[in-house]
Amino acid sequence: MSTVEIEYCVPCGFRERAIDVQRAVLNALETDLDRVSLVMGDHGVFRVTVDGAAVYDKHEDDYDVDGIVRQVRERVA
Amino acid sequence: MSTVEIEYCVPCGFRERAIDVQRAVLNALETDLDRVSLVMGDHGVFRVTVDGAAVYDKHEDDYDVDGIVRQVRERVA
Repeated sequence: MSTVEIEYCVPCGFRERAIDVQRAVLNALETDLDRVSLVMGDHGVFRVTVDGAAVYDKHEDDYDVDGIVRQVRERVA
Repeated sequence: MSTVEIEYCVPCGFRERAIDVQRAVLNALETDLDRVSLVMGDHGVFRVTVDGAAVYDKHEDDYDVDGIVRQVRERVA
């Protein structure tokens, strides 16, 4: 099963957004996953990976929780 | 810096409790930590570790979020 990591910028105050994405991912895919990790970062980072592969990056993609879950689902399947 | 893992029983529906502990740990210690992971488990597990060392186990300790944060803080310091 897969590991999801949500790296977020601590000084930017992105923690609640990270918890929101975490909850949405768990709502949809909890039984398909081993773990979901919140990773403390900085410099504006907000990045979601599945088994190390990026599926969302704030610097490249618009923020859309449902879209992130779809990307995670595709990678996990 | 340290890694905290919160392993919880998925079939028992312990997810929200795990997120509550995660949030309390982050509120208190976010800048002292590398990551806080939710680990999907079963068979009634609810266990918190810091760098692999158990600081709370449902089968041994009463459930007290503030107490768990104190235990994590002691291990992280």
